Amino acid sequence: MLNRKILLKSRPVGMPDESNFEWVESSVPEITDGEVLIQSIYISVDPYMRGRMSAAKSYAKPYEVGEPFMGGIVGKVLDSRNPRFEAGMYVEGRLDWAEYNVSDGSDIRKIHPGRAPISTALHVLGMPGLTAYFGLLHIGQPKEGETVVVSGASGAVGMIVGQIAKLKGCRVVGIAGSDEKCAYITDELEFDAAINYKTAGNLRGALKEACPNGVDVYFDNVGGSVTDAVMTLINFQARIIICGQISQYNLERPEMGPRVMGQLLTTSSMMKGFIVSDYAEHNKEALTQLAQWVQDGKIKYRENIVEGFENTVDAFLGLFRGDNIGKQLVKVGEE
Amino acid sequence: MLNRKILLKSRPVGMPDESNFEWVESSVPEITDGEVLIQSIYISVDPYMRGRMSAAKSYAKPYEVGEPFMGGIVGKVLDSRNPRFEAGMYVEGRLDWAEYNVSDGSDIRKIHPGRAPISTALHVLGMPGLTAYFGLLHIGQPKEGETVVVSGASGAVGMIVGQIAKLKGCRVVGIAGSDEKCAYITDELEFDAAINYKTAGNLRGALKEACPNGVDVYFDNVGGSVTDAVMTLINFQARIIICGQISQYNLERPEMGPRVMGQLLTTSSMMKGFIVSDYAEHNKEALTQLAQWVQDGKIKYRENIVEGFENTVDAFLGLFRGDNIGKQLVKVGEE
Repeated sequence: MLNRKILLKSRPVGMPDESNFEWVESSVPEITDGEVLIQSIYISVDPYMRGRMSAAKSYAKPYEVGEPFMGGIVGKVLDSRNPRFEAGMYVEGRLDWAEYNVSDGSDIRKIHPGRAPISTALHVLGMPGLTAYFGLLHIGQPKEGETVVVSGASGAVGMIVGQIAKLKGCRVVGIAGSDEKCAYITDELEFDAAINYKTAGNLRGALKEACPNGVDVYFDNVGGSVTDAVMTLINFQARIIICGQISQYNLERPEMGPRVMGQLLTTSSMMKGFIVSDYAEHNKEALTQLAQWVQDGKIKYRENIVEGFENTVDAFLGLFRGDNIGKQLVKVGEE
Repeated sequence: MLNRKILLKSRPVGMPDESNFEWVESSVPEITDGEVLIQSIYISVDPYMRGRMSAAKSYAKPYEVGEPFMGGIVGKVLDSRNPRFEAGMYVEGRLDWAEYNVSDGSDIRKIHPGRAPISTALHVLGMPGLTAYFGLLHIGQPKEGETVVVSGASGAVGMIVGQIAKLKGCRVVGIAGSDEKCAYITDELEFDAAINYKTAGNLRGALKEACPNGVDVYFDNVGGSVTDAVMTLINFQARIIICGQISQYNLERPEMGPRVMGQLLTTSSMMKGFIVSDYAEHNKEALTQLAQWVQDGKIKYRENIVEGFENTVDAFLGLFRGDNIGKQLVKVGEE
């Protein structure tokens, strides 16, 4: 049985492209005692992976050149010699970007297709959902009546952040990069307002209008000039959650910007970066809550699904073109 | 009896100078029921006052043009018609920059000359000491063996920060602006290392050498390029305390700098601004602890005292020239 796999061929300078990736074929190995053979069904492409393509020290270890790209994958167990898993089960884990993976079981978790579509293990009931949950609730601590602004608002994390903030009784303003994205978050997700930063002209003015009481919590997926504008409107004791900085990942040189320390000082505000694993001890309670909200129809989501393993890299690159509304997935096998 | 008083004459653009101040004379008013007459002995000049000279919204309300400058003053009660105070007592409070003040008692506290010199109520046992205590311990939460860096290290706040960090078992590195200041913090206060940012050349290199295990806690009084250098060396889950930004207060236009969000993100770090009053509910326990440390000789301090009410404004302006080692005070009356 043939297995296609995607390797990191070279580290990008600036925007990555297809030339940074290499496709290899090999045969699917036999599994040995304790191992599980998994067929990929959904591959998750996520902005943070851009960071791992660089050699720079970060929370996520860099990918090695010549080694497989990896990330969240939902698959089906085809064969198992591990007592915790059996053929036919669905699992999710950090696996190689390949059609088939062999796991020793330590890096995968079972998922229950009866509760929610299996693909949700890669977004609302997986890493992006947990990221939204921990960032907003543990760092942001939004209180009823406060104003929460989220950038990258129609993406995998942003769409969940805004809905949780609504559930907490906040005024929620989303920033996104197209009118279609803005319509999605206001019409379907019921955010109070949305701003298309590409057409707003005076972004600060648009934000000020959308946030007549200022900004108490800012959940930042984007960075750059969008964040500069939000920072001018923060209230006393605001909480700024740095979850992603997608506008900065592909810059060849770091960008200068307004210093934020003065604004943090005069408002007694806090800015904090994080990675979802910082809160791993709370994963279970968070997933239980998220699953309940999804089941009750209180949290909705959208998937942007591309078909075919051969389109995985392009789907990843599309994240930086702003292609996706909702969670970007690649479907590479049948359920 | 004649009373001299200093008013804000005009708002400075850039560095303030004597022309922004006005000196007026009036007679000392009679006190009425509930009031206290206080003769100023020590006037505190503090960098935060520069912020109040501007009209911009901040944690501290702007001074009004034509109204008195005000700040921390230690004085003696000359006359009292308030049952909580009597003649001969020493008090500290936020009062007008004047030789005599009348208070209704709500803005002053009694101080006990037996415990420590009365001037300490304006630094180690007053606002700067509390600022150091709350910023370092409540926000920074230093753990034994961690590395704490403090900028403005020989100033009223910095000198206390470093000593508390030493008491907590940390490696402490101070950044200051002269060799004399550096010698003071290493030789007298026993910081582990000091860096003169004006002569270091490669500040980042000097910091890296002084902090072989990186930076866990950074207590920032200064901002600008000093902070830029420290930020490149922060560890995972570092805490950056924004207490002051003296390098930025007199800029005519805000300075651009490296964006910090990426660094906060990849290290899961936190940056927080604050003002001492955010923690006012803990003032009593903090002052008790600080007084104990001073009494036990575990916290030392230095005062830089200028004599004469007529030198108050120059002493204030001297803060921005880096004149002072330790707490800058103006002595305007006899104890």
